[in-house]
Amino acid sequence: MLAISQRGQAMPASPIRKLVPYAEAAKKKGTKVYHLNIGQPDIETPKMVLDAVRNSDFKVLEYSHSAGNESYRKKLVGYYQSVGIDVNHQQIIITTGGSEAILFGFMACLDAGDEVIIPEPFYANYNGFAVAAGVNVVPVTSHIENGFALPPIEEFEKKITPRTKAIVICNPNNPTGYLYSADEMEQLKNIILRHNLYLFSDEAYREFCYDGHQVSALHLKGVDNHVIIMDTISKRYSACGGRIGAFITRNQSVLDAAMKFAQARLSPPSFAQIAGEAAIDLPADYFDTTKAEYRSRRDLLVKRLNAMEGVFCPNPGGAFYAIAKLPIDDADTFCQWLLESFDYEQQTVMLAPATGFYGTPGLGKQEVRLAYVLNLDDINKAMDCLEAALKVYPGKQ
Amino acid sequence: MLAISQRGQAMPASPIRKLVPYAEAAKKKGTKVYHLNIGQPDIETPKMVLDAVRNSDFKVLEYSHSAGNESYRKKLVGYYQSVGIDVNHQQIIITTGGSEAILFGFMACLDAGDEVIIPEPFYANYNGFAVAAGVNVVPVTSHIENGFALPPIEEFEKKITPRTKAIVICNPNNPTGYLYSADEMEQLKNIILRHNLYLFSDEAYREFCYDGHQVSALHLKGVDNHVIIMDTISKRYSACGGRIGAFITRNQSVLDAAMKFAQARLSPPSFAQIAGEAAIDLPADYFDTTKAEYRSRRDLLVKRLNAMEGVFCPNPGGAFYAIAKLPIDDADTFCQWLLESFDYEQQTVMLAPATGFYGTPGLGKQEVRLAYVLNLDDINKAMDCLEAALKVYPGKQ
Repeated sequence: MLAISQRGQAMPASPIRKLVPYAEAAKKKGTKVYHLNIGQPDIETPKMVLDAVRNSDFKVLEYSHSAGNESYRKKLVGYYQSVGIDVNHQQIIITTGGSEAILFGFMACLDAGDEVIIPEPFYANYNGFAVAAGVNVVPVTSHIENGFALPPIEEFEKKITPRTKAIVICNPNNPTGYLYSADEMEQLKNIILRHNLYLFSDEAYREFCYDGHQVSALHLKGVDNHVIIMDTISKRYSACGGRIGAFITRNQSVLDAAMKFAQARLSPPSFAQIAGEAAIDLPADYFDTTKAEYRSRRDLLVKRLNAMEGVFCPNPGGAFYAIAKLPIDDADTFCQWLLESFDYEQQTVMLAPATGFYGTPGLGKQEVRLAYVLNLDDINKAMDCLEAALKVYPGKQ
Repeated sequence: MLAISQRGQAMPASPIRKLVPYAEAAKKKGTKVYHLNIGQPDIETPKMVLDAVRNSDFKVLEYSHSAGNESYRKKLVGYYQSVGIDVNHQQIIITTGGSEAILFGFMACLDAGDEVIIPEPFYANYNGFAVAAGVNVVPVTSHIENGFALPPIEEFEKKITPRTKAIVICNPNNPTGYLYSADEMEQLKNIILRHNLYLFSDEAYREFCYDGHQVSALHLKGVDNHVIIMDTISKRYSACGGRIGAFITRNQSVLDAAMKFAQARLSPPSFAQIAGEAAIDLPADYFDTTKAEYRSRRDLLVKRLNAMEGVFCPNPGGAFYAIAKLPIDDADTFCQWLLESFDYEQQTVMLAPATGFYGTPGLGKQEVRLAYVLNLDDINKAMDCLEAALKVYPGKQ
């Protein structure tokens, strides 16, 4: 018998995508489904970004430099300066989405059997890249009661072993929307210095902060060799399909190692590098409009959720996700039931059970993640559905 | 001290790219460098392929399905039928270049410590993906004297251990240009059946066959569960920068496992999927023109090489590479010398030392790989340079 690999078996299926067949069945029955389950923004990609690709006039779709086009990397230096991050273009490797930046980081810094500590709930695909790299994810639990703030230092230190090599954060966070404070970032700095760890910081949602500013891991002083940033244009410019991200570090050895992985896959996508480069010239107020839109959505979503009986949703400081606690027996059952057995005026809502975002089995059973990637009107309608559903759900608690 | 990973240290630097600084220095001195060192074709990407992207009119650059757009996969079924390969669209995962297809194959089928047998010389980046996956590459040597034909079965069987899980071939081959015969493909089939191995077949150069047709691994009968094809549009349509490939197998368990890795990285690039889909509608004679051009280049290159004293170059049946044996002491030294210390009428040639394509240390020291990706006139000029260089090279043997 030919067998697949153990890591192929260990690889988790996407917790977000497993409900898709139920959504498709609901749609076939004529039910309108509001998708609050995935982080695909409805915001239009800026026209000038798409036009840059459409108006390109090269004749050969060539490989780019393995680190990405030099012109793009040089312009990115200006973008990072504008957010207070001082790096040069040789400290940037353009990656195929933020995903590849995560993979390069794990591959360059971690060996099979090494451990990374990640505050949970966390972006579920970190599990996938950890399995690919043979790395063990050690969760440290953050709690909905205090809005998913950074767990106390002692909780991290309890988890540190001789195999611990890194802490991974996502800031602002997917799936909680939590924005780490300057004080929390200093705490992280102290841990990584004391225990000589890498800090992988996923900053995909840097611009999406509603009640303050992001403190980047690259703003921290004295930890140049410890910090690796994973970045992406996906959410920033609503350009998820471009598959353009960035791996950034001031640690030369890590850069050199990551570069060898970059060379093996030849180059990042050429078309979308043009889009990414054009996006840097967007007017300074581009994010103002987008951010104002997301802030309104957040405010509406959180208000509607907290007005429902037995529901609690902390106010997320950034990104475009919120996790809410619902008066239900089991989030997986509930989310499937919403699609399979419920409708409100021929409409329903698709949510992501939070269980898939926890590393500790059994956590998140009463929680769901909501991505507020729909307009205000649709969010209202989706909340009408959820409110009606919670009144009749058989597993209500 | 923060250390990079052992795999980061073990990861080989690109053997092709390490001479780049010498080429840049030569150009700064005003020397024209003919690049026969990399497989970046000069052939224009078909206009209708680029126009499909340029004329696209979507408003949001969204994630695609993790397996790639269904419309593209369905059209690919027709393409594969046209080359005698019977697969359905659910047996195809669109990947980010052929590179990602290799990575998915290794990840889904192999565990750390497993062994893959690869006829050497082989595409150097297989080493990189093997290091990423913790897999050990076991080379079995093919020889320039018989044109790099498939080594005898006994040579493979000598290398098989309990950890052997797969054989990797590239057909037609990069770097040798060798096209496996129907008989050789049957021999491979017998080995994988007898020893229950996977056969990973990299078919990036399928259309580039000059003295016959490719026998695809998916043409073989009775090995459906054994065969995985890695494919790419890079060379086929001169679209290397698109980063669109395909992972194809009839083994459902392998597909399911690969799909989980595909979901973790979300989706392949959206722009270039449009290009790939458009390419399937190219007129049937598209490859005729391209193939005729490459055949002329091959014929000229091989003739010029074999006319040089002490040089031997077997006639490659496919792809656009040839390996030649030169009367030199050391290919790495020679290739660097060509850039650093030689010019012929202010021109020189950049070649890839074959040492980087062998897994066995010490092999390939008198061999170089030449990619015939330049027009006939430039190939002639490059050969003039090489001919002149061999007359004066201090390490001539």
